[in-house]
Amino acid sequence: MLEDRYIGLAHGNGGRYMRELIAEIFARHLANPGLDTRLDAAAIDLGDGGVTFMTTDGFIVQPLEFPGGSIGSLAVHGTVNDLAVCGAEPKFLTLNAFIEEGLEVAALDRIVADLAAAARATGVAVVAGDTKVVPRGEGGGLYLATTGVGVRPTGCHYALENIQAGDRVLVSGPVGDHGICVMLARGDFDISGDVRSDSASVLPLTRAARDFPGVRFMRDPTRGGLASVAHEIATATQLTVRLRELDIPVRDPVQMVCEMLGYDPYYLACEGRVVAVVAAEQADDLLAAWRDMEQGAGAAMIGTVEPGNDRVILETSVLGERLLEELEEDPLPRIC
Amino acid sequence: MLEDRYIGLAHGNGGRYMRELIAEIFARHLANPGLDTRLDAAAIDLGDGGVTFMTTDGFIVQPLEFPGGSIGSLAVHGTVNDLAVCGAEPKFLTLNAFIEEGLEVAALDRIVADLAAAARATGVAVVAGDTKVVPRGEGGGLYLATTGVGVRPTGCHYALENIQAGDRVLVSGPVGDHGICVMLARGDFDISGDVRSDSASVLPLTRAARDFPGVRFMRDPTRGGLASVAHEIATATQLTVRLRELDIPVRDPVQMVCEMLGYDPYYLACEGRVVAVVAAEQADDLLAAWRDMEQGAGAAMIGTVEPGNDRVILETSVLGERLLEELEEDPLPRIC
Repeated sequence: MLEDRYIGLAHGNGGRYMRELIAEIFARHLANPGLDTRLDAAAIDLGDGGVTFMTTDGFIVQPLEFPGGSIGSLAVHGTVNDLAVCGAEPKFLTLNAFIEEGLEVAALDRIVADLAAAARATGVAVVAGDTKVVPRGEGGGLYLATTGVGVRPTGCHYALENIQAGDRVLVSGPVGDHGICVMLARGDFDISGDVRSDSASVLPLTRAARDFPGVRFMRDPTRGGLASVAHEIATATQLTVRLRELDIPVRDPVQMVCEMLGYDPYYLACEGRVVAVVAAEQADDLLAAWRDMEQGAGAAMIGTVEPGNDRVILETSVLGERLLEELEEDPLPRIC
Repeated sequence: MLEDRYIGLAHGNGGRYMRELIAEIFARHLANPGLDTRLDAAAIDLGDGGVTFMTTDGFIVQPLEFPGGSIGSLAVHGTVNDLAVCGAEPKFLTLNAFIEEGLEVAALDRIVADLAAAARATGVAVVAGDTKVVPRGEGGGLYLATTGVGVRPTGCHYALENIQAGDRVLVSGPVGDHGICVMLARGDFDISGDVRSDSASVLPLTRAARDFPGVRFMRDPTRGGLASVAHEIATATQLTVRLRELDIPVRDPVQMVCEMLGYDPYYLACEGRVVAVVAAEQADDLLAAWRDMEQGAGAAMIGTVEPGNDRVILETSVLGERLLEELEEDPLPRIC
């Protein structure tokens, strides 16, 4: 590891200190046959067949480490999941690190190790990267960005346009864990609770979904949560999305914190869940397939797409209903 | 354009404000057939043949706008040039923006317009993006990261390993313009000078180089400048790189500022230059080809690779010589 205890501006200058930082933190953890830190660009082999997809995501979560993950693993899962919900198999990642002067080298080392472990577990190779060091006070310790390239098998096509009235809405597990976990980890409120982030690759879930041609569309409900995905569907299709509050899985400690602080769990970020819209006749089978998997054990059928205009209706537990409006002010910034 | 005059945290929250920011600033400027901001990931068509390359770069330059460019155009040129010096044709870019709460919307708009113009001029499509808003005081106004994918024609292969003793070193134009331009634009010193950034795509230069099979290796001398590229060559080959001070092009105002402030121009960043190592028998021809081009008008043959150990020697103008050491402390941070 680096001899220095804290990151300095010189670690970003293109000279010896930067070379050491890259060799002793980034290259050490991220070593793979595709990564040669001496190259300006990395050759990637996408194989034959399929459609190539590319996506990118930035990460500014505070704190940098939290129960169930860190900004490092989150940066892998976020981008991998964006490819996965398109039906693609993620293959290659690039990594940008904006490091604040004064960050503890040991913390950076833990985070990059966590990132590398997540990449290995997911089967993606980090093939290129860039580091910048910004002055003390800027940069929130560490910001990351990852960009992913993957390949979707031919014949697989998910799109908002495929959605039809009568389709069912599924979610692969409880919502809001990541948002509440990070909020509690900040210690801003005098509340503690046993909530771990759901941060994880959703690839097992999206791979299973490929067996069901009735799957119209999938999305991972991150910033803006389940409600924002429902709004995206309603806006794109000009149909009504009807969700049933009683069927939406929310863990007890998440529900309790939401009630204490007046948050609505449907707007909270998840980082390891999938929302799927599927033809009615295959909805039960996809649900059963997901529930058979460790990661989908808490999956539920939570609503339907109905004729009507661009609205999201929540059937409340008292058999009334209310509109879920589009998110405006953010209850929880810096969650991902 | 956005009705708001300043960026707020709500512009990063995944809801309505973020949707408006993306539609009215990013999507408006960056519109191209490959960009659908509603998708999690974008399909990219790399065509057949060749080797696919991927690279990424982060940008933290201060100030955000400077004579000859902005962080927006720089973010295109930086990543395009990393692909170009590998011999690849850049095809697709992704964009990450970390925006500071309080940034003037008009400034963001100018910068994204500059980015879009640079992408159009270079022939690359921005196919995916992500925005995050960080609290006031962090983020230096705006940080960007871009990731590029391109294709290198088969038969083209540049690598440090190809370099042999006897090879010549060329640079495509004067060094240090970008570094001094940005430094002057900061106004930290009571010096003014007519120095514009050299920020530009080097693709015309690297395309021309493809006609010369004697080209061993190319690099764009950004952070750490010409001296750092020379060190990279010497370290990888365990040969000596000998540069001739009299032959290295440095513009008069750059030289003057360097003398006043004690900077060494060989360590200053360029953002539109190429250093090439080429077989001796083709060096004159490549130089002539570059000099015939507008962007290579100031090209020069500046040194040789010699037997010997891992060293960079500068023949000084008084016919003595000195070692160019590897950069340690950065004279000019936040230059790209």
